[in-house]
Amino acid sequence: MRIDGTAYRSIWRDGDGRAVHIFDQTRLPHAFEVITLTSAAAMADAIRTMKTRGAPLIGACGAYGLALALSEDPCDAALARAHATLNATRPTAINLRWALDRLADAVRGLVPGERAAAALQVADAICDEDVAINRAIGEHGLTLIRAAAARRGGGRVNVLTHCNAGWLATVDWGTATAPIYMAHDAGIDVHVWVDETRPRNQGAALTAWELGRHGVPHTLVADNSGGHLMQHGLVDLCLVGTDRVTRDGDVCNKIGTYLKALAAADNGVPFHVCLPSPTIDWRVADGLREIPIEQRAGREVTHVAGLLADGRRAEVRISPEGTEARNDAFDVTPARLVTGLVTERGICRAERAALRAMFPDLAAAHGD
Amino acid sequence: MRIDGTAYRSIWRDGDGRAVHIFDQTRLPHAFEVITLTSAAAMADAIRTMKTRGAPLIGACGAYGLALALSEDPCDAALARAHATLNATRPTAINLRWALDRLADAVRGLVPGERAAAALQVADAICDEDVAINRAIGEHGLTLIRAAAARRGGGRVNVLTHCNAGWLATVDWGTATAPIYMAHDAGIDVHVWVDETRPRNQGAALTAWELGRHGVPHTLVADNSGGHLMQHGLVDLCLVGTDRVTRDGDVCNKIGTYLKALAAADNGVPFHVCLPSPTIDWRVADGLREIPIEQRAGREVTHVAGLLADGRRAEVRISPEGTEARNDAFDVTPARLVTGLVTERGICRAERAALRAMFPDLAAAHGD
Repeated sequence: MRIDGTAYRSIWRDGDGRAVHIFDQTRLPHAFEVITLTSAAAMADAIRTMKTRGAPLIGACGAYGLALALSEDPCDAALARAHATLNATRPTAINLRWALDRLADAVRGLVPGERAAAALQVADAICDEDVAINRAIGEHGLTLIRAAAARRGGGRVNVLTHCNAGWLATVDWGTATAPIYMAHDAGIDVHVWVDETRPRNQGAALTAWELGRHGVPHTLVADNSGGHLMQHGLVDLCLVGTDRVTRDGDVCNKIGTYLKALAAADNGVPFHVCLPSPTIDWRVADGLREIPIEQRAGREVTHVAGLLADGRRAEVRISPEGTEARNDAFDVTPARLVTGLVTERGICRAERAALRAMFPDLAAAHGD
Repeated sequence: MRIDGTAYRSIWRDGDGRAVHIFDQTRLPHAFEVITLTSAAAMADAIRTMKTRGAPLIGACGAYGLALALSEDPCDAALARAHATLNATRPTAINLRWALDRLADAVRGLVPGERAAAALQVADAICDEDVAINRAIGEHGLTLIRAAAARRGGGRVNVLTHCNAGWLATVDWGTATAPIYMAHDAGIDVHVWVDETRPRNQGAALTAWELGRHGVPHTLVADNSGGHLMQHGLVDLCLVGTDRVTRDGDVCNKIGTYLKALAAADNGVPFHVCLPSPTIDWRVADGLREIPIEQRAGREVTHVAGLLADGRRAEVRISPEGTEARNDAFDVTPARLVTGLVTERGICRAERAALRAMFPDLAAAHGD
């Protein structure tokens, strides 16, 4: 998408594949810094420390990480080692494992000398496919925004989103934001309620930033606000992303998504989840019981990072010294609370039969 | 309650009534500072800027503010002026107006020379009654914690609370915390999930502080977490306070309370609201339509205050420069989501008939 008029992707590489570039997302929104990664270890560190994040994007990052490893040492042991290192960085999003497996499967049958170039091709393809997928998600999701605009008699459409499922979380377009960008670019008056998304504030820091840079009207709200806004008719549609969808349609996403889905159901507000098909985990059915939820440091809750009035970055502690905090990074929204899944092939109900009908090829490949 | 072993109330006065002392709650948890107020204007400013807050406590503060005004000038015009100034500070909690009306009604029939002393007596009585009421709320609420402990076979009881309905929000004991302090003091193993409560972080700053100072085990969580905790059986009981309850049992409380009530209902977790009877507004029925919701500055969302590593206080901006934010301070939880109202006279259902049966005298006084 555009940053003040210039088009960017969130990840790109040098011509020879020896260097991959990403934005340091921990510096946003206060600084816009590109970092360059030249090894699988550096990529793993960038994913682990959330310099790069977002389920689809960490899939792409994982693929380039594996390609970087193979360009150094293409043997089987190095491949296995880099795969394990990268896969261990974040446990919840399924896209990372999907991308690593896809790339490893593609190169394993090749002689070592051919692997690095092939890996780079697969990683490039994963990125290009992500862009195409998100564009298709945007086109399907746009019909939801057009319908909401029609219900409003052409008036402003208010979309609520949680966390950052924006272009910063993918290679381009975003998942939940793709329909929003398309609606905005098509001249529809769309306004976004941006959930702050504690404790890491991805909404305040990333979604507000990318919407602002592209020129989409938006308002930041505390995570506590969404229910109240829905009670008062101020939300026409919820659009969120996801880190993993089960074959039964349960949706794992940033902690707090479940609360918004409950409020949407209680107020008759459509709640749609936007996802590329690699986010579907065909091997699990019950999201609450089967998806591992990442536990992050309590310090992310007790301390908040931002910019001081003098322009320096700083971190402040908001709780008494020594206060213990628990920090579950994701929660699971049961399929029954999801109005629809917006995929690259269209919109379907969050249930096994509908997912299987939309993706018969993928379901069959996983024996479902 | 106790701060590191020493007993405190959250408001007290000098013997002659010319000075009232409170804690500056905007300095907690990082500094413990007593401030002294000697005029109604100073008290109004302290309420408006939230140096003092909490529905029951601002009732007591309002009463002392009016008493300070009358000690300076006991004429009718001064009484009316101070009443208006104090009443305009915060719109949502009903306790403030209740206390101001009670005090004004008590002194209006007196000759001016008798008003200041009488006002002081009424303000003192409001404080003493608040302590007695909260003790009674604690005793009734304790039965809920004992029942939860029994269901756990004597194991740890996990209570989730939102915002600060602690002793800092009242004169002593707190409302939602009174049962917790009593359970803890009675040797029951009670642990509290403390919602951070964005955007002002009353949970992180105040509830965590007062529970910690009294020695009650607790864990801070982001507001987004409660639903996930409930889905995984980690919450036995929700206890919250309220700023206004309608005669039909709708509960207005800190923004985000509604989301937790939805999650509690979805997971079969009891959701109880603790309140002194002055919090009931017998004149309104439909909380969503009739209770004014305070709109606060967007800066409370875009900026976070806390302590730097070097011990200095600072404020950091978490969003891009110029980001607009909306900041509704309260929301309304419909009565249907409330398991019970814990009052000084016992626990009743959140519905008109039950409230009227519990408080026939108050209902009759308001023609209900």
